[in-house]
Amino acid sequence: MCPPPDSDAAVTNGTEEMVPIVTDAPALPPSLNERTNGTNGVNGTNGTNGHSAPPSGKHKGAYGRASDFLSNTSNWKIIESTLREGEQFANAFFTLETKIKIARMLDEFGVEYIELTSPAASPESRAHCEAICKLGLKRTKILTHIRCHMDDARLAVETGVDGVDVVIGTSSFLREHSHGKDMTWITKTAIEVIQFVKSKGIEIRFSSEDSFRSELVDLLSIYRTVDKIGVNRVGVADTVGCADPRQVYDLVRTLRGVVSCDIETHFHNDTGCAIANAYAALEAGATHVDTSVLGIGERNGITPLGGLIARMMVADPEYVKSKYNLHMLREIENLVAEAVEIQVPFNNYITGFCAFTHKAGIHAKAILANPSTYEILNPADFGMTRYVSIGHRLTGWNAVKSRVEQLNLQLTDDQIKDATAKIKELADVRTQSMEDVDMILRIYHTGIQSGDLQVGQSAVLDRLLEKHMPSRDSSPARGAKKSRTDTTV
Amino acid sequence: MCPPPDSDAAVTNGTEEMVPIVTDAPALPPSLNERTNGTNGVNGTNGTNGHSAPPSGKHKGAYGRASDFLSNTSNWKIIESTLREGEQFANAFFTLETKIKIARMLDEFGVEYIELTSPAASPESRAHCEAICKLGLKRTKILTHIRCHMDDARLAVETGVDGVDVVIGTSSFLREHSHGKDMTWITKTAIEVIQFVKSKGIEIRFSSEDSFRSELVDLLSIYRTVDKIGVNRVGVADTVGCADPRQVYDLVRTLRGVVSCDIETHFHNDTGCAIANAYAALEAGATHVDTSVLGIGERNGITPLGGLIARMMVADPEYVKSKYNLHMLREIENLVAEAVEIQVPFNNYITGFCAFTHKAGIHAKAILANPSTYEILNPADFGMTRYVSIGHRLTGWNAVKSRVEQLNLQLTDDQIKDATAKIKELADVRTQSMEDVDMILRIYHTGIQSGDLQVGQSAVLDRLLEKHMPSRDSSPARGAKKSRTDTTV
Repeated sequence: MCPPPDSDAAVTNGTEEMVPIVTDAPALPPSLNERTNGTNGVNGTNGTNGHSAPPSGKHKGAYGRASDFLSNTSNWKIIESTLREGEQFANAFFTLETKIKIARMLDEFGVEYIELTSPAASPESRAHCEAICKLGLKRTKILTHIRCHMDDARLAVETGVDGVDVVIGTSSFLREHSHGKDMTWITKTAIEVIQFVKSKGIEIRFSSEDSFRSELVDLLSIYRTVDKIGVNRVGVADTVGCADPRQVYDLVRTLRGVVSCDIETHFHNDTGCAIANAYAALEAGATHVDTSVLGIGERNGITPLGGLIARMMVADPEYVKSKYNLHMLREIENLVAEAVEIQVPFNNYITGFCAFTHKAGIHAKAILANPSTYEILNPADFGMTRYVSIGHRLTGWNAVKSRVEQLNLQLTDDQIKDATAKIKELADVRTQSMEDVDMILRIYHTGIQSGDLQVGQSAVLDRLLEKHMPSRDSSPARGAKKSRTDTTV
Repeated sequence: MCPPPDSDAAVTNGTEEMVPIVTDAPALPPSLNERTNGTNGVNGTNGTNGHSAPPSGKHKGAYGRASDFLSNTSNWKIIESTLREGEQFANAFFTLETKIKIARMLDEFGVEYIELTSPAASPESRAHCEAICKLGLKRTKILTHIRCHMDDARLAVETGVDGVDVVIGTSSFLREHSHGKDMTWITKTAIEVIQFVKSKGIEIRFSSEDSFRSELVDLLSIYRTVDKIGVNRVGVADTVGCADPRQVYDLVRTLRGVVSCDIETHFHNDTGCAIANAYAALEAGATHVDTSVLGIGERNGITPLGGLIARMMVADPEYVKSKYNLHMLREIENLVAEAVEIQVPFNNYITGFCAFTHKAGIHAKAILANPSTYEILNPADFGMTRYVSIGHRLTGWNAVKSRVEQLNLQLTDDQIKDATAKIKELADVRTQSMEDVDMILRIYHTGIQSGDLQVGQSAVLDRLLEKHMPSRDSSPARGAKKSRTDTTV
């Protein structure tokens, strides 16, 4: 198994300091850079992009992409919903103590908002909401998420939150099978709730639910209405996880031309697009993205905090690094994973155990020359470490050379290639542990130094290995995988 | 913890048969349906979309999306690379026996191709490749993946494969730090390799590596050259996982206008777009998608087989169901997870333990009325089961009513609402197990039947619960989560 990236045994050498990744990327040619606006949306006029904060960095971005007047990929905020959407995860039961730990850690990480379960859900939910509002978080504003109903709104404004997120289903599915109300009722109630919350001097968001299965004209109509009466944000939600990035881009882009308030987005991940959809929404002019730690939520969850960060680091690494304390990501994920009794997935973004492990020979060679060849994220930005795996049948001599240098052995390239051939031969039978690889290299080195071994003398090397590593072949093939087989670079 | 979806204890009732999901979805209005072609790509002429199989279903698709002459979301093939890309996963060491099991199972599942590690990687890799070619798979064609080099090509064609996938890095990163060759050398070698493989009468693909950091003109130029000499497929690869769906759409759409051969795509998932990018590529006219089981591969891997299936089921469920044996998905994933010693992620597409678990009260109510309200995938299509979680503080009376009916208890809606209030009150202290919920409902029912209990008599109910469930409050709060708290619908 691959070692944990923060293993005490990790050996760092000078290559830990990488060249900046994105700024070194060659500019793409114009066809991939330029977005032609105004041709594939209903409402292509860009004149009403009036969300509160002026966009920054719009004329740069990843891969030299040229200016895009709608894009907010360098100007966006997180609404972290682990304590609301995340509480709807099958395994979640958060005590107040756990909620407070999570809230404080997200505040320290730097998320702009956290969202809490409705105080109307249960007496305990209400008490928790009130307690978290009294914590005095340094940076993060506190929201609660309620149904579009005056009873819930009255409870919400008394908890001490900085804002209220109101939601109601607008698709025919939900209008028929959930609340049973028509658009006239929805609009009337929305206006009442919004005006009430605004009168208390706190933020108010109005979101549709299941937006991508709602009628566009209904959606735009109610969004325009609530925008006119001064809602802070409208919300677009892919409640069932059916939307794809081009649908998202089209809807948000159209909406950007209709409302002047901020646009919040919420994406479920049932069909694997939750991160890409959030990115497409920001490209189209959305301003806020809902996340949860590890993506926990209803069913298989929503846009994960770490996954969104990974994506946005490609668009504008300096902006992301300026906003968030990225080294805390793993600690927050571990806290939440423990609280809901799950393992961090093996393939988790950034913090998964193999996110920065390189194995194929041709990859290893290039990574050793320049990490940007096979890495779009710099592990050091997250307090993580890169590994190049060498004790396996796909290894290459460049990776072995790096290890030879770490061990301070004196071997020529031809000798290293010869030793690599032996490592591959042995690894074809079973993966070789790091200890095995090191031993082979030391024996090879001693043989060369003493004159007992010449390049190409495979049988001589076999005898030397047998003499000095007699137990080598008696190890069970599977067991070997448990040892470290990687080199840190 | 949520029960496994195939738990023997699962109780099914009549609602297991769902209405078809996508065909019932209301058509989106024109602005979300129509794709205007020809305005945002360099080479917008669609006249050369000459990939082998004629597109099917182009004039229907999800949500009544109108015709899109480029889209292949109803006409695509899988190149399953668990035995190549997956072998580059940090934990992977496949014996021949394991490789054969995986190959046979993927054949039975119905993938169109499997891709194997290069025979040039090691003697064992070569032997494995030859052995798998001799299996006589029923449907799946066998490819091997080699460097753009005549030595590798000569080895490859002798293994008995149905085709060869050739790859070479074309970005300045890889040209400088990996193979060190210029575009002239690449083109010359590519032509030599392609003509050699073609002369053997088997399929040949030519792919660039790191396509999204390559110069567009270089890319198009070499693709046009290899297309003219009769390559079967050209490949586009996001080797570092940096691309986003709009970039992918633009590049593939441009390429679709330049070559007449098939277009294969390969997406790494470092920044969370591997599934969305594959979908965008098919929308733009790509024909083949590389996958691996659970997405295993270099770093955090590539487009996962199950995730791609989930995504494509939204676009055209009948097409996907006609091609693949979807009930096998979980078995294949379990086989690979065991072979590489990982857990299937908690949030895995389709087969994750909570993929079809519904928890919030308003979700549960609607799901009970019509599963399509909060599900875009039908669990029955994959041999999976839906769960509605009820023993927690966010529960609603509609979910409880469903359980009351399963238990065959006679309670009015008012009585069920009253019992639900008590369940929420108790769940506020700790999540209630299914046994607890059933016991509460039975005691409530007995109380009502005997006349000892009336609606609203919370204190009376407390005394009845104390009498009949004396150990109720002594259970440790966390331990309760281990029991089943869900109802199958």
